[in-house]
Amino acid sequence: MSVIKVAILGFGTVGEGVYRTIQSHSEELTATLGKKVEVAAVLIRNTQKKRNISENVLVTTEFADILNLDQLDVVVEAIVDKEPTFTFLKSAIQRGCHIITANKEMFAHHGKELLDLAAEKRVSVGFEATVAGGIPVIQTLRQLLNINRVKQVRGILNGTSNFILSEMREKKQSFAQALVLAQENGYAEADPTNDVEGFDAFYKTMILSRLAFGEEPNWQDVEREGITSITSELIEAAETAGLRFKHIASITRLGGQIKATVKPALVGKENPFYHVEGVQNAVNVQSDIVGEITLQGPGAGMFPTASAVVEDLVHVCLNPTVKRNLTRSQEVGTEFSKHDDKQETWLVHRLTHKPITPAITWIEEVEEGTYVINASSKEVKQLAKQQKNLLYFPIIGEYERVNQVKAALKAL
Amino acid sequence: MSVIKVAILGFGTVGEGVYRTIQSHSEELTATLGKKVEVAAVLIRNTQKKRNISENVLVTTEFADILNLDQLDVVVEAIVDKEPTFTFLKSAIQRGCHIITANKEMFAHHGKELLDLAAEKRVSVGFEATVAGGIPVIQTLRQLLNINRVKQVRGILNGTSNFILSEMREKKQSFAQALVLAQENGYAEADPTNDVEGFDAFYKTMILSRLAFGEEPNWQDVEREGITSITSELIEAAETAGLRFKHIASITRLGGQIKATVKPALVGKENPFYHVEGVQNAVNVQSDIVGEITLQGPGAGMFPTASAVVEDLVHVCLNPTVKRNLTRSQEVGTEFSKHDDKQETWLVHRLTHKPITPAITWIEEVEEGTYVINASSKEVKQLAKQQKNLLYFPIIGEYERVNQVKAALKAL
Repeated sequence: MSVIKVAILGFGTVGEGVYRTIQSHSEELTATLGKKVEVAAVLIRNTQKKRNISENVLVTTEFADILNLDQLDVVVEAIVDKEPTFTFLKSAIQRGCHIITANKEMFAHHGKELLDLAAEKRVSVGFEATVAGGIPVIQTLRQLLNINRVKQVRGILNGTSNFILSEMREKKQSFAQALVLAQENGYAEADPTNDVEGFDAFYKTMILSRLAFGEEPNWQDVEREGITSITSELIEAAETAGLRFKHIASITRLGGQIKATVKPALVGKENPFYHVEGVQNAVNVQSDIVGEITLQGPGAGMFPTASAVVEDLVHVCLNPTVKRNLTRSQEVGTEFSKHDDKQETWLVHRLTHKPITPAITWIEEVEEGTYVINASSKEVKQLAKQQKNLLYFPIIGEYERVNQVKAALKAL
Repeated sequence: MSVIKVAILGFGTVGEGVYRTIQSHSEELTATLGKKVEVAAVLIRNTQKKRNISENVLVTTEFADILNLDQLDVVVEAIVDKEPTFTFLKSAIQRGCHIITANKEMFAHHGKELLDLAAEKRVSVGFEATVAGGIPVIQTLRQLLNINRVKQVRGILNGTSNFILSEMREKKQSFAQALVLAQENGYAEADPTNDVEGFDAFYKTMILSRLAFGEEPNWQDVEREGITSITSELIEAAETAGLRFKHIASITRLGGQIKATVKPALVGKENPFYHVEGVQNAVNVQSDIVGEITLQGPGAGMFPTASAVVEDLVHVCLNPTVKRNLTRSQEVGTEFSKHDDKQETWLVHRLTHKPITPAITWIEEVEEGTYVINASSKEVKQLAKQQKNLLYFPIIGEYERVNQVKAALKAL
């Protein structure tokens, strides 16, 4: 039986998960691919660290050693940082290898280039693990929604932020306490900036945008905001209004332009994101034929991410060149009006006084200085300019406070 | 440019949806397939009915006319009943056509035979539309979870039943009133037996079982129960306990045997099924590498179902023979004990007296005669034998009444 030889770059959580899954699921791999899958080499940085890797595997600190192997079919990349990763993967494609990556920052920056090069060399690129861990959202957009025209994609894409928000709400913890817990659980890095400031979710959003719409917005035009402004006080005010904070990425095409935001928003209890807690992720795709589909599952972790990589392994080997890699274009005839003028629902916090204007509809006073309002985003931004400490967050979906109070009463 | 010629059997809701979607999305189809997709023929029954079909399309009541077309690449079947559909599709495969079906009853009965014949003739079978409407659950199991070993699949698979349960709860309607509304909305047939007695969900469950586990349980061993026993009174009792009724299909492999049930169950508000309302469907897949994934979306309707068929059209044309059609086998090393003795949580209703037995843990008295208990299914069945009018329903997931009351209080 012929053999598929794989190299794994990096042996951290993801790399080790992939290695162990290839061993534990070798029967399934052989049955599906008709070939045995073998890890031929692992690229490491620290030679002192003890690792549980079979003697038959080349363990090296030099990527050149890997590239010089007699046979090499697939290179799995599970490192971080843009470089030298991007250079490694380009060389791997040049050699004729399929590549699979879990590196969102690198892929957000260089994905297009890698895909173009791969198309030229007639090899495949797997990147399921770059977004939403084990939830097969990339392949759903790539393979299962070929004919549907995507209108909007929304997602909870950063497990660390979601975990922190859940902890703050459920256990009444401060942001700082919840962050420490996230770090102790291995969900957050020593430097958590990438997660809590929304950079990680931003990279994932750009990858989804290219996949859903064939293009990305200008990166500098994307409103990117992390969760560091969310206090316990705010979470309580939201709960009083029957709402929960989620860190939500949203991408829409409006009048030929891609509009993306990555920021905290509020959802009510009938929204599919309301019960997405802890390190779970969820993605909601709105398309023209099927309507709305929501996928939910584990957003990170050794095996969920390994699952994405190993399932990708099957695809790159079985479908050598996916023709329609990232080339959606058709815009749906949209009903959107000019975005800035669209009426939306907001929670505003620390309002010092209620301005008298017909442009704002006051829906409910949640507590002193905290209101639910209807207004355009233009109007809310203007309000924030006038009242310096004002915080404002969009409410996604219908605001159903009245029904919620009724339901809560009933449940007693 | 070469052309892919399609015949559509049946021009009801699904057939017409497919026809219209092929017209409206011809650009996407051409871009993805590199060929133009043309509807060459439509099979109808009633020649008197006025239909909006282009003059270039052969409209006929005779399947033989369709089979005799000079070119025919794909046959889409959107009729009901097992026959003559099955015979039609066999002939289509014999002729060398790919087939796509939306017919769950036929496919539950004859799917294996069709797939085997198709493999022999080297053509493909698309059946995404047989389960969960527009949610790509079939393709997720078929293409995206190749290496994962599936442990359990649970789903809300019948939109009509879910709609009726939602209406009964939200609008305080009786089963009969909600059923009439479902019929008026076109969600239920004049004879609703298939939906409300759980047959439709049962067929879908058998299709999912074959896909997830490579085999089916003995049909007669499957506990199949519809929603006709669910009264307004029961729904209210459940709400008091913070629970909602859902009609849930569940398939697990236990000790080499497939165990399936299709029946009403209760879920609490942290369960992903809790907020699946109206004609929505949802499927939860538990696998060994990735963990739990939940997919939610429209379970029926003209365009969601057409979406499933048209996305299948792409797959059958691009992937002429999917090797690993329905051949999963590996069992996961499971931690399940002998199923009958497993402790589960139940809502029991119309209990005339509390038996004194250590085998039942009394968790809460919801109201007179209605309790939440912990017990094995064996124990509950015995209880039901002793107390003739007793109704009992499993509670899926953790029962968190205490927290729910706290949350409800807080939300006020």
